[in-house]
Amino acid sequence: MANDILEGNPRIGIPRQTVLADGLTTAVEGTLAEFLSGQTAALDDVDPALGRFARTTRDLVLTGGKRLRPTFAYWGWRGVVAAREPVEPVLPALAALELMHTFALVHDDVMDDSATRRGGPTAHRIFAAQHRNADRLGDPDHFGTTSAILVGDLCLVWADQLLARAAVSTATLFAVRACYDRMRIEAVAGQYLDVLGETEPAAWSVDRALLVARHKTASYTVQRPLQFGLALAGPADADAAAVDEAYNRYGIAVGEAFQLRDDLLGVYGDPVITGKPAGDDLLTGKPTTLLMLAHQLATPAQRAELAPNPAGAVIPADGSGGLNSPAALARRAEVIAETGAVAQIEALIQQRVTEGVEALASAPIHDDARAALTNLAASASHRRA
Amino acid sequence: MANDILEGNPRIGIPRQTVLADGLTTAVEGTLAEFLSGQTAALDDVDPALGRFARTTRDLVLTGGKRLRPTFAYWGWRGVVAAREPVEPVLPALAALELMHTFALVHDDVMDDSATRRGGPTAHRIFAAQHRNADRLGDPDHFGTTSAILVGDLCLVWADQLLARAAVSTATLFAVRACYDRMRIEAVAGQYLDVLGETEPAAWSVDRALLVARHKTASYTVQRPLQFGLALAGPADADAAAVDEAYNRYGIAVGEAFQLRDDLLGVYGDPVITGKPAGDDLLTGKPTTLLMLAHQLATPAQRAELAPNPAGAVIPADGSGGLNSPAALARRAEVIAETGAVAQIEALIQQRVTEGVEALASAPIHDDARAALTNLAASASHRRA
Repeated sequence: MANDILEGNPRIGIPRQTVLADGLTTAVEGTLAEFLSGQTAALDDVDPALGRFARTTRDLVLTGGKRLRPTFAYWGWRGVVAAREPVEPVLPALAALELMHTFALVHDDVMDDSATRRGGPTAHRIFAAQHRNADRLGDPDHFGTTSAILVGDLCLVWADQLLARAAVSTATLFAVRACYDRMRIEAVAGQYLDVLGETEPAAWSVDRALLVARHKTASYTVQRPLQFGLALAGPADADAAAVDEAYNRYGIAVGEAFQLRDDLLGVYGDPVITGKPAGDDLLTGKPTTLLMLAHQLATPAQRAELAPNPAGAVIPADGSGGLNSPAALARRAEVIAETGAVAQIEALIQQRVTEGVEALASAPIHDDARAALTNLAASASHRRA
Repeated sequence: MANDILEGNPRIGIPRQTVLADGLTTAVEGTLAEFLSGQTAALDDVDPALGRFARTTRDLVLTGGKRLRPTFAYWGWRGVVAAREPVEPVLPALAALELMHTFALVHDDVMDDSATRRGGPTAHRIFAAQHRNADRLGDPDHFGTTSAILVGDLCLVWADQLLARAAVSTATLFAVRACYDRMRIEAVAGQYLDVLGETEPAAWSVDRALLVARHKTASYTVQRPLQFGLALAGPADADAAAVDEAYNRYGIAVGEAFQLRDDLLGVYGDPVITGKPAGDDLLTGKPTTLLMLAHQLATPAQRAELAPNPAGAVIPADGSGGLNSPAALARRAEVIAETGAVAQIEALIQQRVTEGVEALASAPIHDDARAALTNLAASASHRRA
């Protein structure tokens, strides 16, 4: 089965029946596998080294992931189309979001110099190791970065090619792309603010952290995928404006809740479940809403205990020693909770989930989509990884 | 004037008459300035730091450049449309190619760690300097790389947004995008082979160097822009297949000639005119067609003089010392000529220019386009920078 997915197998490719929600991930991954099989073969024909590059990229796309963006887009579409409308014509568009997501992850991992992703090495680490093992000229880490930039670029273009395969009218595709372009701009803008924030924590605030959450996560994970699904359903009818508004409110609220949960997991998450180091956000100094709120609420004594790393401090890779010893991280996590920030973030999450669910309550969408999105609001903001 | 271009000025934005070839660059830059003015204002409204990021990106797009890709696309389009067809509807599509080109240059400069581009600092150097001057946390060079990756990503998405503004039917736009996607895949593939070649010169050959030239330069600079222009002209008529074939042959031939001239300039170009260090390709060890051919033709004694830098050798930034002293570089340039490689490359260029011009001779395109493309074939392959 793993090999079928990796190598592409038309027999398990695109299912010929309307998929159920449970089958959606399988259908999206089948669409990706079939598409990527053709693309990697084409590059292999140009040069075997390009074939290896393309297959490494393909494996990064197909390995793991929650496939959240195709899921939200699917329900955004399902909410407004006739109950028996087959999903096959729009599967390429749903799957394209996953290629775009690989682009974002691979470039983000270069920027954060992350070592692992989805339980394996990140793209730049894979290519650095290939370089090192082949004993080539030049710096392996630089080759890793270079290759990962190109992996991301390739995924972004592949996403456009797969999107173009959606069996919808060119006018519908035009509207879908307008939404997709907004989403990509917001993702880039959010990522820039995110990395900027790490370099100037003193200039950061709760409001700016929420702005990052809104652009980097809410827009890109929930709000725009839902509207992307709506656009996929074709020309706007009389209800379209009301649906768009409901998706907008739900998307921003649930997307922010999702990011706020991420903030809590970044400090209190179980490393075994999240796949990230314990206290990851404390190590990197990322100015999340949680940390900004803790600083705002802290007493002078608490604030002293929360002080960020001194400028230029070198963080040992194993997180040991000084300010980043496990004991010191655990203490900072305790102080954050003592400021009351954790309780307030939990309240903000609950408030946003409620707001998101309420936005859908009276929206003119099908009941199955309303029920699924209501469940997703809860599970996305109460997950453990 | 410079300020009008930078800030955008509707009065000098898109000319209201059909532009002549001479006015094309001005029209493309006016279209870019008007588009970028709106995009930067929108990001500025989200956060002033995003506004600064967007304006730096805009300045990189608007500063200099030969605007070759819009020019080839223009003539590809002009070759088949009625003589009085106004250019304004397709200007956004022509200008989009220039945004895509900025994406490619900015990411390439990160990969090559180039310091200058178009007479100014490269994107990653600009952002590293901003970080250093503001005395922020973290490594300025890493922030420079991160920001430049995002500048490139932003330009690639902006290109799609500008392309969508072309006033053509959605069906025409669909065909244009298919060509554009092929071009982007080939550019990424060519760039990967290019950086891979630098790491394993022993595995390289004349054939592989020509493969890089074909993908990285011919496809991306000439062949696909011409076909992009043809697609912009709308639904295919009875002549379309013949025109496509002529553009294909001309594009590959002239594009390869362009790259072969680049190879010669990379060794023999005047640094004052090219804006790159003397003997740039000898310093980086890029396995160009010229260098591969010299190795192939060299006598054993010549081959010893051409030996690449020993693995792991550190090249001083000023190019001084040992194998990379000005005297040593000048000697290697002499040896390359002595092998006969320079004369053979000049012959290959001439052969390709002739082939490109012949491909157009009997093509069913307008005479003004045939004349302009004939001139471009000569000027692109006999330039000094």
